[in-house]
Amino acid sequence: MAQKDEAGTRLAGIVGTGNLLTGEAISDDYAHDEALSAPPQKPGYVAKPATAEEVAELLKAAAEAGVPVTARGSGSGLSAGARPVDGGLLVSFERMNAVLEIDTGNHVAVVQPGVTLAELEAATADHGLTYPVYPGELSASVGGTVGTNAGGMRAIRYGVTRSNVVGLQAVLPSGEVVRTGGRTSKISTGYDLTQLIIGSEGTLALVTEVILKLHPRLPHGATVLAPFDDFDQVMAAVPRIVASGLAPHILEYIDNLTMAAMVYNDKLELGVPEQIRERTQAYLAVALENRVAERVDEDVEALGELLTELGATDAYVLDGGAARKLIAAREKAFWNAKAAGADDVIDVVVPRTAMPAFLTRARELALAAGGGAIGCGHAGDGNVHLAIFCTDPDTRSRLLTDIFGYAMELGGAISGEHGLGRTKTKYHEKLTDPAKLALLRRLKDSFDPAGILNPGVLFA
Amino acid sequence: MAQKDEAGTRLAGIVGTGNLLTGEAISDDYAHDEALSAPPQKPGYVAKPATAEEVAELLKAAAEAGVPVTARGSGSGLSAGARPVDGGLLVSFERMNAVLEIDTGNHVAVVQPGVTLAELEAATADHGLTYPVYPGELSASVGGTVGTNAGGMRAIRYGVTRSNVVGLQAVLPSGEVVRTGGRTSKISTGYDLTQLIIGSEGTLALVTEVILKLHPRLPHGATVLAPFDDFDQVMAAVPRIVASGLAPHILEYIDNLTMAAMVYNDKLELGVPEQIRERTQAYLAVALENRVAERVDEDVEALGELLTELGATDAYVLDGGAARKLIAAREKAFWNAKAAGADDVIDVVVPRTAMPAFLTRARELALAAGGGAIGCGHAGDGNVHLAIFCTDPDTRSRLLTDIFGYAMELGGAISGEHGLGRTKTKYHEKLTDPAKLALLRRLKDSFDPAGILNPGVLFA
Repeated sequence: MAQKDEAGTRLAGIVGTGNLLTGEAISDDYAHDEALSAPPQKPGYVAKPATAEEVAELLKAAAEAGVPVTARGSGSGLSAGARPVDGGLLVSFERMNAVLEIDTGNHVAVVQPGVTLAELEAATADHGLTYPVYPGELSASVGGTVGTNAGGMRAIRYGVTRSNVVGLQAVLPSGEVVRTGGRTSKISTGYDLTQLIIGSEGTLALVTEVILKLHPRLPHGATVLAPFDDFDQVMAAVPRIVASGLAPHILEYIDNLTMAAMVYNDKLELGVPEQIRERTQAYLAVALENRVAERVDEDVEALGELLTELGATDAYVLDGGAARKLIAAREKAFWNAKAAGADDVIDVVVPRTAMPAFLTRARELALAAGGGAIGCGHAGDGNVHLAIFCTDPDTRSRLLTDIFGYAMELGGAISGEHGLGRTKTKYHEKLTDPAKLALLRRLKDSFDPAGILNPGVLFA
Repeated sequence: MAQKDEAGTRLAGIVGTGNLLTGEAISDDYAHDEALSAPPQKPGYVAKPATAEEVAELLKAAAEAGVPVTARGSGSGLSAGARPVDGGLLVSFERMNAVLEIDTGNHVAVVQPGVTLAELEAATADHGLTYPVYPGELSASVGGTVGTNAGGMRAIRYGVTRSNVVGLQAVLPSGEVVRTGGRTSKISTGYDLTQLIIGSEGTLALVTEVILKLHPRLPHGATVLAPFDDFDQVMAAVPRIVASGLAPHILEYIDNLTMAAMVYNDKLELGVPEQIRERTQAYLAVALENRVAERVDEDVEALGELLTELGATDAYVLDGGAARKLIAAREKAFWNAKAAGADDVIDVVVPRTAMPAFLTRARELALAAGGGAIGCGHAGDGNVHLAIFCTDPDTRSRLLTDIFGYAMELGGAISGEHGLGRTKTKYHEKLTDPAKLALLRRLKDSFDPAGILNPGVLFA
């Protein structure tokens, strides 16, 4: 314990005694994120730095003491990427939560990693600008969304985090502070470190500042809900809607069981008659936006005609309140799944044309394992969110291996936006080409040769 | 020479004797790209593989013989990234030029690297889809655009190559073939190898297949030309136009000298009266597109009003023929600069609000060096294309160091879309933070420990 105390003293010296927690002072919150299948684990230390310099000092101290380091934003992740290691240092960015600048000339926001998406939304609204990445959880921190390359419902029009982060400040495990990118959306001077760090789940560097691309906030919008009798028709409709040029910013499918749960839990009134609900296999929710109000009306009409032509039973234009409630309920689908006792939540991505095949097989596999799989997802992106019901851990592990393996066979990947974290890493290692895995490991080593950053995440 | 002949025999055995050139059989074309400031250099060998397997065998053979390898697409690059090394192997992708699939369900094209942008444009047109990256040279190969992270005029709306490539097949120097990404636009399973290879200018791996994101081809458009008396007003107008939500897909500035050269060389008739041309410091060219014809007319009207409000002397709606000629002339600006005797062409990127400061200083520096700097560029992106007139190589080298250094001081970078190649690498090494350079070097080593891929590019 002597060595640990020494390390603790040094860490406290860096951030100030009040900003270093140890032992009983560490609350349970720091022991987990929102992943359903990772047991909580308290770290040895929780440090709350205020500056990049403090982060650099923390990393130097941790490297010298051989203490593993995990970064934490709001703890809203779903793969346990922010769950710390026994005896490790959890660097919580809760004090680095300033919106440093809304730069209206270059249309970027410069923020510290602890800023939440809700705070960013509030900071940009008055400028007629918006940061369009909406992973459904507005309490998420920007740093966390960078770590997992968060996506969300608007990715169909605006892209994921990767498409909307143009620069970073990051601290390497050596304590060196680097800046990548800048307030520009194009650079061609070799390897893009911004892109390499995005999605790296705290295994390469700790991000201490983020430059985000802002977009014009379009003032007018509408949401259309279309029930389909047949899931394959839903999926066949998707590329046609995208190709139409109507440019929806939301294009979600919701299966009948998930919709029933949403209607029940969130008391949605969507105006869909019972006899239609009963025969519906899945719904498409499509949201449009425009700078001109009349164009939204025209586009809604065009969309309604297109949906009917593509096999929708009908198309319901939701009024503002109902639309907001539907989207909010969709964002909360994870919490419904959790409340219903789901054992895991996955977000496989496949080419969108492969979604029917994938869903059919995933359900068959879950049934064969004595469990179930229901869900919803980002139809335009092929990103399938499934609540997995399968209590026995070993059976579930085999089931997930089969489901992920099939997604990869179809040309997809284990996760579209949640990340691998501690819960999906083992599947990735098992299912990925060894030559590629070895290359990924060499990349890790080029940043973090001692392996102190988030061990157990991305690499088992 | 015995060793070289052995290598040649092995290489010929891989691609077939007819597809390996040596000595006098290597035409001058293979000795250069379009960079103005790099002396031509013939390679020892030119190999024209037909498959990824042949590329893998070529790389294994080259690694064993210690022969440096440079990749070549169409040779239209502007930084000598495709200029080979004395005695080296040039891998020309001219035979790997098939459009493998236009996947209209997933809205992607799967192509070999030797496909040109013109061929891709022809292959997508009938499907109502388009690949929106237009670096101005339609003879460019897709592989080349991946290597340099090419941008072009439409990046303001559609992003650069980086935003539109979703997957790759690539061969590592070890001969291992990896696949990255897929027919989906979001993945979160750790480090994004697709993004790391994009912009790496053939220094990490050789790309043998590319999956490109396609967009709906919008049928209606218009182009507006606005002269301004004052360059600062042009720049102040840019964020206002972007924030308007009019979503231009082209937003270019053209300075008065460059416009005069374009009008003269390309016999443009733009309808701008002489007395206005005389007082104009710079022009903005703005192109709009929409799926509905009437909306283009309405948007052109709104844009015209906005431009006048922002200080434009007038706003000219160009008819289809004149608009096409203007854009074609703008794409050819490099050739005009070359014909006018420019000694180099640079494409610095700065935050767009810093463009007036940058341009003023760049011109002052050029004048002080006894030379000149004129140009045009992507106003929305802060990407400044300057023709540099400065004959003496040492003076020019100092001038470019000063210009690039100032761009970086402003938060910008040496290149927005051309890449570093052989001509800008030395400035990058001089002006970049050593900790960052060391990290970039470690990344290079993690792919290419023996340093056989494109030595002299990205690292001197």
